[in-house]
Amino acid sequence: MNLEKLIKPKVAAVIGANERAGSFGNYSAVNALQNEGRIQIYFINTKTPVVLGKKTYPNLSALPEVPDCILIATPAKTCAPLLEEAGKLGVKAAIIEAAGFSEEGTEEGKRAEEELRVIAEKYDMSVMGPNCIGLVNNIDKVKLWGMGGTEFDMSVRKTGVAYFAQSGTMSIHAVSCPYIDVSYVFSMGNSTMVMIEDIMEYVLEEPEVRMLAIYLEGVRDGRRFMECLKRAAELGKPVVIHAAGMSQKGAVAAASHTGNLASSRSVYQAVCNKYGVILVESIDEFLCAVNVLSTWIDRMPKGANISAVNGSGGENAVCADLSELYGVPLPDFHPETVKKLKEILPGFANPRNPLDITAITDSVYDVMIKTLETIGDDPNVDAVICSIASFAEPNAKDREQAKIFGESLNERYAAPMIEYAKRPGSVPLMVIPMTEDRRDAVWRGRLREAGIPILANSLAGYKVLGKVCKYLEYRKRVHTLENAAPLKRHGERILSLSEYASKIELSDVGLPMPKQAVVKDKEELLKKAAEMKRPLALKVSSPDILHKTEAGGVKLNIYSDEETDAAFDQILASCRAYRPDAKIEGILVQEQAPKGVEMMIGITCDRHFGPMLLAGMGGVFVEVFKDAAMYPCPLSKQEAEDMLRSLKAYKLLRGYRGSEPCDIDALTDIMVKISQYAMSRRDELKELDLNPVFVYPEGKGVSIVDALVVKYGD
Amino acid sequence: MNLEKLIKPKVAAVIGANERAGSFGNYSAVNALQNEGRIQIYFINTKTPVVLGKKTYPNLSALPEVPDCILIATPAKTCAPLLEEAGKLGVKAAIIEAAGFSEEGTEEGKRAEEELRVIAEKYDMSVMGPNCIGLVNNIDKVKLWGMGGTEFDMSVRKTGVAYFAQSGTMSIHAVSCPYIDVSYVFSMGNSTMVMIEDIMEYVLEEPEVRMLAIYLEGVRDGRRFMECLKRAAELGKPVVIHAAGMSQKGAVAAASHTGNLASSRSVYQAVCNKYGVILVESIDEFLCAVNVLSTWIDRMPKGANISAVNGSGGENAVCADLSELYGVPLPDFHPETVKKLKEILPGFANPRNPLDITAITDSVYDVMIKTLETIGDDPNVDAVICSIASFAEPNAKDREQAKIFGESLNERYAAPMIEYAKRPGSVPLMVIPMTEDRRDAVWRGRLREAGIPILANSLAGYKVLGKVCKYLEYRKRVHTLENAAPLKRHGERILSLSEYASKIELSDVGLPMPKQAVVKDKEELLKKAAEMKRPLALKVSSPDILHKTEAGGVKLNIYSDEETDAAFDQILASCRAYRPDAKIEGILVQEQAPKGVEMMIGITCDRHFGPMLLAGMGGVFVEVFKDAAMYPCPLSKQEAEDMLRSLKAYKLLRGYRGSEPCDIDALTDIMVKISQYAMSRRDELKELDLNPVFVYPEGKGVSIVDALVVKYGD
Repeated sequence: MNLEKLIKPKVAAVIGANERAGSFGNYSAVNALQNEGRIQIYFINTKTPVVLGKKTYPNLSALPEVPDCILIATPAKTCAPLLEEAGKLGVKAAIIEAAGFSEEGTEEGKRAEEELRVIAEKYDMSVMGPNCIGLVNNIDKVKLWGMGGTEFDMSVRKTGVAYFAQSGTMSIHAVSCPYIDVSYVFSMGNSTMVMIEDIMEYVLEEPEVRMLAIYLEGVRDGRRFMECLKRAAELGKPVVIHAAGMSQKGAVAAASHTGNLASSRSVYQAVCNKYGVILVESIDEFLCAVNVLSTWIDRMPKGANISAVNGSGGENAVCADLSELYGVPLPDFHPETVKKLKEILPGFANPRNPLDITAITDSVYDVMIKTLETIGDDPNVDAVICSIASFAEPNAKDREQAKIFGESLNERYAAPMIEYAKRPGSVPLMVIPMTEDRRDAVWRGRLREAGIPILANSLAGYKVLGKVCKYLEYRKRVHTLENAAPLKRHGERILSLSEYASKIELSDVGLPMPKQAVVKDKEELLKKAAEMKRPLALKVSSPDILHKTEAGGVKLNIYSDEETDAAFDQILASCRAYRPDAKIEGILVQEQAPKGVEMMIGITCDRHFGPMLLAGMGGVFVEVFKDAAMYPCPLSKQEAEDMLRSLKAYKLLRGYRGSEPCDIDALTDIMVKISQYAMSRRDELKELDLNPVFVYPEGKGVSIVDALVVKYGD
Repeated sequence: MNLEKLIKPKVAAVIGANERAGSFGNYSAVNALQNEGRIQIYFINTKTPVVLGKKTYPNLSALPEVPDCILIATPAKTCAPLLEEAGKLGVKAAIIEAAGFSEEGTEEGKRAEEELRVIAEKYDMSVMGPNCIGLVNNIDKVKLWGMGGTEFDMSVRKTGVAYFAQSGTMSIHAVSCPYIDVSYVFSMGNSTMVMIEDIMEYVLEEPEVRMLAIYLEGVRDGRRFMECLKRAAELGKPVVIHAAGMSQKGAVAAASHTGNLASSRSVYQAVCNKYGVILVESIDEFLCAVNVLSTWIDRMPKGANISAVNGSGGENAVCADLSELYGVPLPDFHPETVKKLKEILPGFANPRNPLDITAITDSVYDVMIKTLETIGDDPNVDAVICSIASFAEPNAKDREQAKIFGESLNERYAAPMIEYAKRPGSVPLMVIPMTEDRRDAVWRGRLREAGIPILANSLAGYKVLGKVCKYLEYRKRVHTLENAAPLKRHGERILSLSEYASKIELSDVGLPMPKQAVVKDKEELLKKAAEMKRPLALKVSSPDILHKTEAGGVKLNIYSDEETDAAFDQILASCRAYRPDAKIEGILVQEQAPKGVEMMIGITCDRHFGPMLLAGMGGVFVEVFKDAAMYPCPLSKQEAEDMLRSLKAYKLLRGYRGSEPCDIDALTDIMVKISQYAMSRRDELKELDLNPVFVYPEGKGVSIVDALVVKYGD
């Protein structure tokens, strides 16, 4: 696939260019004209010799040269013949705007899309769409884009963010946002041919692209998607993903929209945790997050210690509440900072973070800049948030007030902030206005120029800031970036290993298993039992009996040979009565583990992103209280411990109400080993369940009491 | 307290009226002039004979009549003498704007405020403030308000919402919101004299006041506050509370701001649940909620079944996601609706809720109105949400596009929505734009006129809609509105009852308790034991041994007399060794309850709002997993069951993995009885703890295994 011709064409043709206001063809033509001079543009129109003052050609063959890329703005039924014609001529890239393909959910639509795919493959063409708006390349100033009206003016925007949208409307919402620097916008449409992963790989390496922002309804190639996230993490380029269609009804909506079958939200969250991706669930948060990261890109805060400066007690209380709610750390000031602030703000008994400097009207500039300097110098402060001015577009009354004061509220507060931001060693600033509004473009621009983002409002602002703080923490640590997504499609047959076989397989990869044997008769049983430490556990081993306890197939706390003998008989009798036709392979005898804190460790394999490690407390804790952590394999001991730390049950592992702390080291050991096992079996493993795992006090290790491995067969 | 003179003065004087731009005195004077003609206004200024073209008086005594209310806009140190002077003259109401009192946290500030309070009491004056902006009465057109600039123009606003703000800035944020009908705005300030509860009582009864909106940092009189909420619920007037300062740092911020000591967030949430109050934690949500409820006030949806109509697949997916996340029910359409929608939207295989009608450009009016009609007629639909147009103020490109189409996107979608809303039997509509912006005032006004609110953006919009849905459900049910807030201040001494005494007290109010006795010697023990069913439990009874198990003070599973005898000796020996100086009252012997599902039921008494019932699973479930419900006493059986239903552990009570369902009836019985007990002891109870309560299968009842009652003494 040659994406160069698609993304950076030197010659492009708009098929269906016309003057019918509101049509794809008209928008596409108007937009393409903005490219003129930088790249060669041709218009194709079968009926009109001139469109928008530009000569047209009746078809591709009539052009004086073969275009690198064509933008097809004509209806669905014309697309296949046009693509065929282009392919024959040697065109290597195309964008298809029309809807009416697989997204309709009809057989006809699917067939029509498959026809396009076959043509694209035949001629080795990079085809974006169908059902898309097109692309904007603001690095080379290429605008092959079928929508107008609220779109941005490319000429005034700098480069920075590469946007990907699997929804036309969502790409418009993002592109309409006038204050974000854009390198690229890709409206992906149905992504049948050129996929989001293809383009991510390409643009990530460009130095002008500073971060990625993705509206995602599903991935096609989880392995490559994760590789892109890995590369972004290595390059230090932030990624923001708005993953939609994650709810039950949302998945139906998204599926009928783009035909994607999404992984669950918890899987996306786990993948995002691994790669430090900021995952959001609304467009408000999406734009806030992109705004913050792209504005801060050249001076990212060193950590997540936030300080806030507000202009009233009410704002201060709200700031503290929302910070706590959304996980924004507001550490206390250093005593030296408190001392200095008392001098700057003389009426203040005890300056605290968040800081209410009150509605000062005198010496605002002076107080603001000294306050910012003092807080910024505090070793406990990595960034400062201000809610002191809204920077809203002024209304009539604001203008009146500005006349009174000789300056507006915006001017009064912006000036010291911008001045502070210019000083060497200053920490990054951010403005979170309390309420929604349209911001004043001039002040927003000046603040942004100084690296100060203005967020949408307090709710979205603090919610996003909490996520940005997690990202800032992520950047300070080392991570296992390797991914374990499947290399090939697994078989359809499902193969459950018996407990015995599961444990053998797992002990082969270094997991500590209790001594065990499957025996056919009592003689063998007593021989094996003689080699084991008491008490023993005896269990039926049968592929047909899944619920062993229910079938009377489990006997515990066995000490003597007599008890062993009796248990053998009882299990067989009970299981035969329970299910007379069950195939009984034998009796599993094992050393019974003493009770410990009951955990469950498991693997579930996502079809896109591969094996996910699960950890939680056993029994009702995971199932009723949903207290489980998930992380993509493989992972490090540190990451395994972070998983445990994220559980509410972590308190119990750390020793609760006088009980001894558990052997977390031994537990994370098996988590790491299982993640490696799962990675090595990525193409065949379906799920794995160690439940319960008994965890003993520090230094005493763990016991894997029960194990189940389920694989895909061929 | 005569609030009439404060809230509805016929004659008012502004003390400190001046022409110094930006001063309280200037703003207050400018605003007061808007009242002229409706009420008599006087200006007081000791230096200037004319202010803003109006004659001034040097002092209150010089006025031709005694004002009903004075607005004191002069500095803090002048306030007490002015109030004294006014009191002597017979002025019965005052508003004090100056800061510099108790909110500063200094002894001097507290003294100055106490001085004001004493004067107000002496002359029986209703005094608002200090440290406030004032009040706006839009029913009688009185504006005694010390701030300008972004404030609203009273003349164009209708009545509707009574606003209360315990923060000047927050009242400004609310008042600046140009699209909410306002009856009153009260900036409460330090609330030393006139409290929020006083004014709530007064305005609730006015027919022009349709709902209350409160920015709250704390209440002074919980009982009266709850009585107001009760009255609002009875009158069907919605209440929205933005409770700030609920986080740890927020409480500090709020306390240093207004001197209030707040109850915990969970207590506020419980009180709000009882009275159907919408509780929010950000100003964005606050304004959204007020906007929705005040716009819908004359045609509240009959229930919480929401349907959504969107214009793209992306919007549809986001709508579904946010609805699920924030608890907005999107029930499936009735089959008849699906059939009709297929005719209106012919390309659609399967119309679903949420509905994506796609970016239609032809016959928009026709399609929209038919779609709304069809969905509105569905018996499963109580209201319809649209995200199909943003109604943002047009920018240059929008205006350009409007020229192309002859109408703007806003016009195109607003017209059918307004038309539909006018039809008899139509269901309420709401617009949730995807992203923040400033809305077009004209369209917002027209839609609001038709009862259609436009919310801020998708994040705040759906978050608030979820809460509005809970409120709509609340309106359909019957509630226990009676409140159990303390009638008098409790004593300071704390008195813990022994387990024995606690159980006696609770069995007196009808709670089922195991048979029990405290014995001093073995003879008495064996005599009492003979009357009890085995097994028995023996426990030490000592005020000095709180952790009985740790002290070896508990023996369980006792059957024979020999075991009883031995247990007596062992407990005494062990406890004496554990704590030689402990006063041992005797040995508690009781019938040991068989194991059941382990719950805890408790009471904690909030100093403002009185006893709160707590319920959750015993042991680690409440403490580690925070799975507990809280509700203000008293409550009904239905409300007790709703509490249990809100627990994650409810699954276990309903019978989990084959276990029998529990006796929820018996459990809710004791919850109701405890709530009544707590209400009757509201002034002396500190806390109560039944932990564990064993719950048995349906029809088998419950056992209260341990009980602890803690009271306040005198």
